[in-house]
Amino acid sequence: MGGDSAPEMVVEGIDIALSRLQGAEFLLFGDEGQIRPLLDRYPRVKAISHIRHTDIVVTDQEKPSVALRTGRGSSMRMAIDAVRKGEAAGVVSAGNTGALMAMAKFVLKTLPGIARPAIATYFPTMRGESVMLDLGANIECDADNLVQFAVMGEVFARNVLGLTQPSIGILNVGAEGLKGNVAVKEAATILQETDLPIKFYGFVEGDDIGAGTVDVIVTDGFTGNIALKTAEGTARLFGHFLKEALTSSASSRIGALLARPALNTFRMRVDPRRYNGAMFLGLNGICVKSHGGTDALGFSNAILVAVEMITDGLNEAIKEDFSHVGSHRRDDPEATAAL
Amino acid sequence: MGGDSAPEMVVEGIDIALSRLQGAEFLLFGDEGQIRPLLDRYPRVKAISHIRHTDIVVTDQEKPSVALRTGRGSSMRMAIDAVRKGEAAGVVSAGNTGALMAMAKFVLKTLPGIARPAIATYFPTMRGESVMLDLGANIECDADNLVQFAVMGEVFARNVLGLTQPSIGILNVGAEGLKGNVAVKEAATILQETDLPIKFYGFVEGDDIGAGTVDVIVTDGFTGNIALKTAEGTARLFGHFLKEALTSSASSRIGALLARPALNTFRMRVDPRRYNGAMFLGLNGICVKSHGGTDALGFSNAILVAVEMITDGLNEAIKEDFSHVGSHRRDDPEATAAL
Repeated sequence: MGGDSAPEMVVEGIDIALSRLQGAEFLLFGDEGQIRPLLDRYPRVKAISHIRHTDIVVTDQEKPSVALRTGRGSSMRMAIDAVRKGEAAGVVSAGNTGALMAMAKFVLKTLPGIARPAIATYFPTMRGESVMLDLGANIECDADNLVQFAVMGEVFARNVLGLTQPSIGILNVGAEGLKGNVAVKEAATILQETDLPIKFYGFVEGDDIGAGTVDVIVTDGFTGNIALKTAEGTARLFGHFLKEALTSSASSRIGALLARPALNTFRMRVDPRRYNGAMFLGLNGICVKSHGGTDALGFSNAILVAVEMITDGLNEAIKEDFSHVGSHRRDDPEATAAL
Repeated sequence: MGGDSAPEMVVEGIDIALSRLQGAEFLLFGDEGQIRPLLDRYPRVKAISHIRHTDIVVTDQEKPSVALRTGRGSSMRMAIDAVRKGEAAGVVSAGNTGALMAMAKFVLKTLPGIARPAIATYFPTMRGESVMLDLGANIECDADNLVQFAVMGEVFARNVLGLTQPSIGILNVGAEGLKGNVAVKEAATILQETDLPIKFYGFVEGDDIGAGTVDVIVTDGFTGNIALKTAEGTARLFGHFLKEALTSSASSRIGALLARPALNTFRMRVDPRRYNGAMFLGLNGICVKSHGGTDALGFSNAILVAVEMITDGLNEAIKEDFSHVGSHRRDDPEATAAL
């Protein structure tokens, strides 16, 4: 029920995702009166979906703490409960981010060794794709949080992006060791000295995100959220300027017509819907947050992100890796302090 | 002497700037042996320039504290000293940012009522231009710092951007009052309750920068630096994708040829050199930092930024405004605590 054009976007999004999915089934939590007529319009979705009715909805305005206290029978909470009970392999929601994180944390708990879950996303770069975390779950982070994000991001890049030895960078205001706040400096020292088989690159700056300097970009949720949205806004501004230029004269309009297939490829590459689906990492259950303002295509992508996390066994890999972190603790007092 | 292609870029930059400047004179601080032959190549610059020789240079690697202690006879320090003595109306440097800020703060001091200077820059938006500060002078900021940045930014937008009643926004991870860290929440409360004639919009998010939602974007130096560089990196990535698309087929190459004048206009609009010249606000003297990697065109822009700040009487206006802040203190205990 979350998102600007739910539940239609959700049902249509499943329909789009189905062309790339085999054997999936869906539990749809929400208002049966609204969902059933939609399923009649999408018979492929109807065939593999089960409605779990509730008319309680967590609104976008609701404070996470209030949603957590009063939202027991809400569609959001019921969907998360289904993951805990093992009825669903993961949950995808386009609703209130703060409420989703608060409920998911409360119901699913974090994986062993992880103090706080983080929100992660893919990012297009000149070298392919990177993953960046945290994007807003943790407004203030200490060095230990950042180190845990680094380890989770590394596991993600190996298991979901399929990289053999992903490189990790911490976002900072300069590449030199003496720059930045206490948290990033301490986290860098820990990652430099750790025995964990992690390829720590060091500090990266904002322009390294698009350049693809590293595979995993680690940052606190305040900075990460602002960096992600600044990138989105810059892409939109760039697109706006380009459109203005290409419609400014007769010859540029003809030129744009001739280059249309290429420009469409370009548009597809920078389409934010392709990167829709923020992943909650570190929870004992798969949870993906779709942008509330997206459409069916964007929502289908969020579904596919969740499916990928499930089929690639991400959480099992994180558990496995953090159990090694645990055994390192005994050997390495430095790592003990940090992890 | 600072920057990747100094001193040639500096001399050529002056030559470019001269076409938009009347009656300006330049003091050039640095190695006479390198500068004199350059002046012979740029006779227009030679006619209005005076070399002040030194062979001491602050390197990019130097720690600000070391530069401050040992760099007394350096070209950077001598240039700043010239501003303090009234021999120069402002200083422009493409050298070590941290050293420049440390020296400028030490030599010029801050304006009355300002605890910490901030680095500001113009930003292209869908609605024209905005100004954003701080971009890296202050890694950790409290609410008072942010409020002072807001007041300085407002004065800048009125006096240099020429806006009648500029709107001010604080960069945050959400528009709602309950989001964000302590500093941004407190600063917002102060700006909402102040008697100062400031048009405070409230919180803005990263994508509001490119959208031009507000005229002045206030943030701490850590976040601001990362947001600025993320925007630069995204613009570069976007340009890279566009170029790949437009050279991908024969028809797209012909299309790009037909649209070339429009694409050139577009390129010019997003050319980072047009926005080169970071302004140090809050100092008792004009100081502009050019990007070290820029070329003569970019450097000429940094010169013109400094000239604009001087001719628009920015510092006099900041002094005037902060004297009002002072008188507010007596009336308003809330403002006293803050300012």
